[in-house]
Amino acid sequence: MAEAPSLARGTRDFGPQVMQKRQYILSTIRQVFETFGFAPLETPAMENLSVLTGKYGEEGDQLIFKILNSGDFAKDLQAEDLSAGPKALTKKISEKALRYDLTVPFARFVVMNRGKLTFPFKRYQIQPVWRADRPQKGRYREFYQCDADVVGTDSLLCEAEILLMIHQVLHKLGLIDFTVKLNNRKILSALSALIGAPGREGELCVAIDKLDKIGQDGVLNELEQRGFSAETRQALLPFLHFEGDNRQQLAHLGQLFAQLPEGQKGVEELLTILDYTEAFGQDSSKIAFDLTLARGLSYYTGAILEVKVNKVSIGSISGGGRYDNLTGTFGVPGLSGVGFSFGVDRLYDVLEELNLFPASALLSSQVLVAHFDDVTPQQVFPVLANLRQAGVRAELYPEPGKLKKQFQYAEGKGIPYLLLAGPSECESGVFGLKNLATGQQANLSLTEVISQVLEG
Amino acid sequence: MAEAPSLARGTRDFGPQVMQKRQYILSTIRQVFETFGFAPLETPAMENLSVLTGKYGEEGDQLIFKILNSGDFAKDLQAEDLSAGPKALTKKISEKALRYDLTVPFARFVVMNRGKLTFPFKRYQIQPVWRADRPQKGRYREFYQCDADVVGTDSLLCEAEILLMIHQVLHKLGLIDFTVKLNNRKILSALSALIGAPGREGELCVAIDKLDKIGQDGVLNELEQRGFSAETRQALLPFLHFEGDNRQQLAHLGQLFAQLPEGQKGVEELLTILDYTEAFGQDSSKIAFDLTLARGLSYYTGAILEVKVNKVSIGSISGGGRYDNLTGTFGVPGLSGVGFSFGVDRLYDVLEELNLFPASALLSSQVLVAHFDDVTPQQVFPVLANLRQAGVRAELYPEPGKLKKQFQYAEGKGIPYLLLAGPSECESGVFGLKNLATGQQANLSLTEVISQVLEG
Repeated sequence: MAEAPSLARGTRDFGPQVMQKRQYILSTIRQVFETFGFAPLETPAMENLSVLTGKYGEEGDQLIFKILNSGDFAKDLQAEDLSAGPKALTKKISEKALRYDLTVPFARFVVMNRGKLTFPFKRYQIQPVWRADRPQKGRYREFYQCDADVVGTDSLLCEAEILLMIHQVLHKLGLIDFTVKLNNRKILSALSALIGAPGREGELCVAIDKLDKIGQDGVLNELEQRGFSAETRQALLPFLHFEGDNRQQLAHLGQLFAQLPEGQKGVEELLTILDYTEAFGQDSSKIAFDLTLARGLSYYTGAILEVKVNKVSIGSISGGGRYDNLTGTFGVPGLSGVGFSFGVDRLYDVLEELNLFPASALLSSQVLVAHFDDVTPQQVFPVLANLRQAGVRAELYPEPGKLKKQFQYAEGKGIPYLLLAGPSECESGVFGLKNLATGQQANLSLTEVISQVLEG
Repeated sequence: MAEAPSLARGTRDFGPQVMQKRQYILSTIRQVFETFGFAPLETPAMENLSVLTGKYGEEGDQLIFKILNSGDFAKDLQAEDLSAGPKALTKKISEKALRYDLTVPFARFVVMNRGKLTFPFKRYQIQPVWRADRPQKGRYREFYQCDADVVGTDSLLCEAEILLMIHQVLHKLGLIDFTVKLNNRKILSALSALIGAPGREGELCVAIDKLDKIGQDGVLNELEQRGFSAETRQALLPFLHFEGDNRQQLAHLGQLFAQLPEGQKGVEELLTILDYTEAFGQDSSKIAFDLTLARGLSYYTGAILEVKVNKVSIGSISGGGRYDNLTGTFGVPGLSGVGFSFGVDRLYDVLEELNLFPASALLSSQVLVAHFDDVTPQQVFPVLANLRQAGVRAELYPEPGKLKKQFQYAEGKGIPYLLLAGPSECESGVFGLKNLATGQQANLSLTEVISQVLEG
């Protein structure tokens, strides 16, 4: 007996029902992206290791899945290569790796095609990424990312449109109680200078980014460990608890930054983004300036944002920001861009928890045509063909057999209607249509069957 | 200066225009699959190596991309492991690999979930696969497969529906001049017995499968090398050139197989499949019984088919067949199934060659709103919002600037309309809509703009 097969650790199959729900989410996102002029891009799963290495920090490099060279990969290896450590050995037997995110492959694509692309270049990309993380609940080694970016312009219209897209996607998905946190790296940089730790905004960001998780004392503690003086920590305190609406807070900050042009610029950018968003007619009541939002990634240089669904215990479902140097590591400096992404797994969990998947998102067959013993193909196949031609997703149970088994099949697949089409029905043109949820049955012409099924 | 990045050999980026065309093909296929009651499945890119090894023959095993274990993968390696050859060494440093096709992961899924699935189980799966083949024109190391299978029934309705789906997909894609070649492994098996080489249909198939490529002499030559006697080769000859329409050829074969029940069964199966297909109202003139169709894969046991577009020099664009033992290698025997797949890359090439991609398949923005210097966000943003709300894919050039540059942007992205919306237009509600292909410009209300853009 063969060994029972299993999934690779940290990976998942998406069976039909899960897939249908995921497709509902992804097609909603895709449609909004396209309405805003974003075009699709796909890059290969495998990238040259040199493209990926060094882009995600030392820890990130270790989490990249490397692909063994094909053929006789070990033929030039010497015994001493074994003692040189995994990093050196990897270089000798692996030249390719699985992509770790969609941003670096996107940057590579832009650099390689910059002579051919139309700038500003707006692309979206929905593909899996792989990370050799320790698997745990909600953390997988293969998961989808869903990014949209604009590169080649520093217009704040892009930031405003990102806010609009977030609102529209969540609205279409039926999510209404959410908050978009907004901040700006320039503000964090000025803040760092203002509290007496100029140039250390990186460390400052890492610490205050955790405010939600570890609280004020945790943040202060971490800053102390990082060598921030008592004075700087004291000076930071009032900023962790800022009062007033968005514009009040930003006005207040603008005054505090009177001597710090970078800080003023950050404040002005956010005010403009809010103005633009409102000029689109978008209610901005769900957008909340949050001075403690830092976002971990070091490459952001302007506005940053993060979206949290309220009243569910699930982390942020979307985030992004502006960066000034996407392609610098590939030798092409000066391309400014702004992007964001949706966390598909988390969106899925939120919709599931709030029971927001509509029945129509489940794309199973709409009608099962029961297969009677005494019906001929010439009688019943045309019925099936007519249903499909009218756009009804329909199937005939593949073998004639007990109705009970056919019922179970419909139930198992979530098919809402059973069509009774024996020889006499096929001849008379009047069919029994059974609603499997209610048990109600009606005698209808095929045209009536089609209307009833398509209308719900 | 950083090194110029490159793609991994044998892989491709799919930029916006290519993606839009691919999505057109894939959504056409997906829609037909769903109309026939097939539900989507996705399996992970990474499988345990033990799931994949031994399923594709010795050569296939070598073409599987293996993933290096993460962490300190080499810590238990000894010098003598290096001399044990790549196969033994791979086992020590790699436990996972990239999927090589969609069939084996599907079989694994069915085995792992057989207690939960509703049988007959109909799934489709559209995902990339990876093969460490030597890259060459038209052969990639990463490419999409697009499979649909039914397992758990031996009803020939499934085969007929596969023929219908092929016809419908190609018809929707505008492909009308194609041939579906049809044969049956049982017939090939009986043929093998009939010519005096019983049990050797595997070798026989491999040889006559190449008839199109290497001609009759090539086939006979190969059979000789494989040790088929002169008598068997002589006996095979008439079968390589069979005359008459499908039913005439099958009737003739049925007579020749009078003493061979397996051969008779194969003939009957094909006759039933043809009957069923015609009972659906499907014109069967593009279906051609072809005794020389063998299909290389060893696991087929019943009907086999292959689709070729006529008058283009591109190989088969679709193929499939019935297998009796999909899950046997995983210890679950007896699950019969039938499946087929579309070759997306080849379909793409065919549609490109025949110029069959409709303009509407290119999902770019429909309108570029020109961004004038003197217009305010409060004036022009609502125009953009209204267009999008009406379902128009629209964008505003992100910065005010020279119209020429904005024209070039629209041209580069293939946007068909430019909307002139300066301060006076926004105030009066009458906008200039310029058709960028014809150069014609009309003054229209926003409602009229929307109708014109959406209607074409």
